[in-house]
Amino acid sequence: MIFRQLFDLKSSTYTYILGDEETRDSISIDPVRSQIERDLKLLQELNLTLKFILETHVHADHVTSASHLRDRTGAKTVYGSKTNLKCADILIEDGENLECGNIKITALHTPGHTNGCTSYWVDNKVFTGDALMIRACGRTDFQEGSNEKLFKSVREKLFALPDETLVYTAHDYLGRMVSTIGEEKKFNPRLGLSQTLEDFIAFMEEHRLPYPKMMDIAVPLNQSCGKMEKEEFEITPDELVPETGNVILVDVRGAEELKGPSGYIEGIVLATLGEDLNSFLESANPEAPYVFICERGRRSALALFEARARGFQDVKSLQGGMLYWRACGK
Amino acid sequence: MIFRQLFDLKSSTYTYILGDEETRDSISIDPVRSQIERDLKLLQELNLTLKFILETHVHADHVTSASHLRDRTGAKTVYGSKTNLKCADILIEDGENLECGNIKITALHTPGHTNGCTSYWVDNKVFTGDALMIRACGRTDFQEGSNEKLFKSVREKLFALPDETLVYTAHDYLGRMVSTIGEEKKFNPRLGLSQTLEDFIAFMEEHRLPYPKMMDIAVPLNQSCGKMEKEEFEITPDELVPETGNVILVDVRGAEELKGPSGYIEGIVLATLGEDLNSFLESANPEAPYVFICERGRRSALALFEARARGFQDVKSLQGGMLYWRACGK
Repeated sequence: MIFRQLFDLKSSTYTYILGDEETRDSISIDPVRSQIERDLKLLQELNLTLKFILETHVHADHVTSASHLRDRTGAKTVYGSKTNLKCADILIEDGENLECGNIKITALHTPGHTNGCTSYWVDNKVFTGDALMIRACGRTDFQEGSNEKLFKSVREKLFALPDETLVYTAHDYLGRMVSTIGEEKKFNPRLGLSQTLEDFIAFMEEHRLPYPKMMDIAVPLNQSCGKMEKEEFEITPDELVPETGNVILVDVRGAEELKGPSGYIEGIVLATLGEDLNSFLESANPEAPYVFICERGRRSALALFEARARGFQDVKSLQGGMLYWRACGK
Repeated sequence: MIFRQLFDLKSSTYTYILGDEETRDSISIDPVRSQIERDLKLLQELNLTLKFILETHVHADHVTSASHLRDRTGAKTVYGSKTNLKCADILIEDGENLECGNIKITALHTPGHTNGCTSYWVDNKVFTGDALMIRACGRTDFQEGSNEKLFKSVREKLFALPDETLVYTAHDYLGRMVSTIGEEKKFNPRLGLSQTLEDFIAFMEEHRLPYPKMMDIAVPLNQSCGKMEKEEFEITPDELVPETGNVILVDVRGAEELKGPSGYIEGIVLATLGEDLNSFLESANPEAPYVFICERGRRSALALFEARARGFQDVKSLQGGMLYWRACGK
């Protein structure tokens, strides 16, 4: 089997490519929106045809490229059946097999981080997503998280696999790429065999983390396999890239927001929604082309309607705002 | 063979651990100073005894943990003979074998990024350092870099290995972890078989990069296997960590430098070397404990001597300054 592990440095997400050497059919597990060009190039160079896109769960920390990869390759998207996602081509049941060339994958439902979390088991490898992680595990404090369910999934289902099974997770923040079931049984400080459910619950209560900054945009988007429906008045990040020099970019956020993690696009005019924007529009040329930008794409839509009401014709709103712009790797 | 690839997110450096399953003897390739605790913990958990620390070259972008790993494990440091490093326990010749348990490694001198660059070949894997990289190669514009030598090393030596040989490099900046000789022959835009030496030279001339920010501290340190000799008036980063709350930290750099990539330690007093520092010392308590800090550890030494001349007794200078502090992962 051709096997590649790939890393997204921004979200510390691991993506995997599994390819059958004979048929050249292949699978991508947990692909990331901003890495779609890298992944497609590699598939092409390895002479692989993408047949399936497997997601271990609805991610909260990055946007999946599942929907875009499907559009560009014809591959089918696969999610655990408990996600109930309408955008999934296949909702895979617990214990169900999926065949891709000579590769046979078994889905193992491993709820706890989310209800729909599914691990994928192939030969001596298991792809555990955010259920079991290296000396760690996924969070249980949002998206239907449950300590009891996660404990049961890891201890009864994943730890039932052979000790030498290689554990490939959706993330690691310390530069570790792989572990084994045997190692995690011994050394996982949360879910290892020496820990009780009570120990685990106490650990998770003590180790609360801040709210993931991408969650507001990532979760709803990922529930649509990463696809954002486009309104007629919107321009997508991909469409805007070649146009940035040809249009007037008007950022309608507050000045403070520009210093935040989403940053801003080079060359913008800052005209905060409200009085600032109104003064800007009063003196601006209504014949020129404008793109309005905000954090999530809602305030920029308001700005656009304000401009239209004043007779501006060539106006667009950046779809998904700066959060989506960054999620797309711009 | 037990095999682990590890990543340092800050410098995008890959470190490798190779272990013999029978004897539990092991090798680390290109370990990073700031990751020493992670690496030692993993070796212990995998029940491996470190016998050799192999460096592919004298790195310019991170500090090696070779010397510290040797101190803590008794392992021998191995460098290509053309490095001429005094700190190396073994200077390995081109074509020479190294045995570690049942693992047999062959050294291949692959100069061009530096004169001493050495690749290590084991079974179906080759560790190429900064000679051949994934769809790329190392720089040739400093440290005895030579386009001609690098072209020859890759084309005549590395491309002579079987096509299916897995290529593991010292870095990748796009989240790719492995390639093969066959892929690089086809797809490496600089050194692939369709490129001539003239193409390669033209490419390297066109793609100049900025000066590596760690180079001034990394190269001299790495020429001593990562060991920084300590002066009697200095305190090491490891020693300072538990003391930060017990001493007065005086940063003697300019205010602007604090905004640079090295940043500053929480709780410092800023007293720029010169008049600022002199005023500070005039009103400071000469009985209190002080640690002076700068970018590389030279200005802080001057500050310390100034303080001593004024009768301050309990004064230290942070060894290697903020650059070394960061290199040690603080």
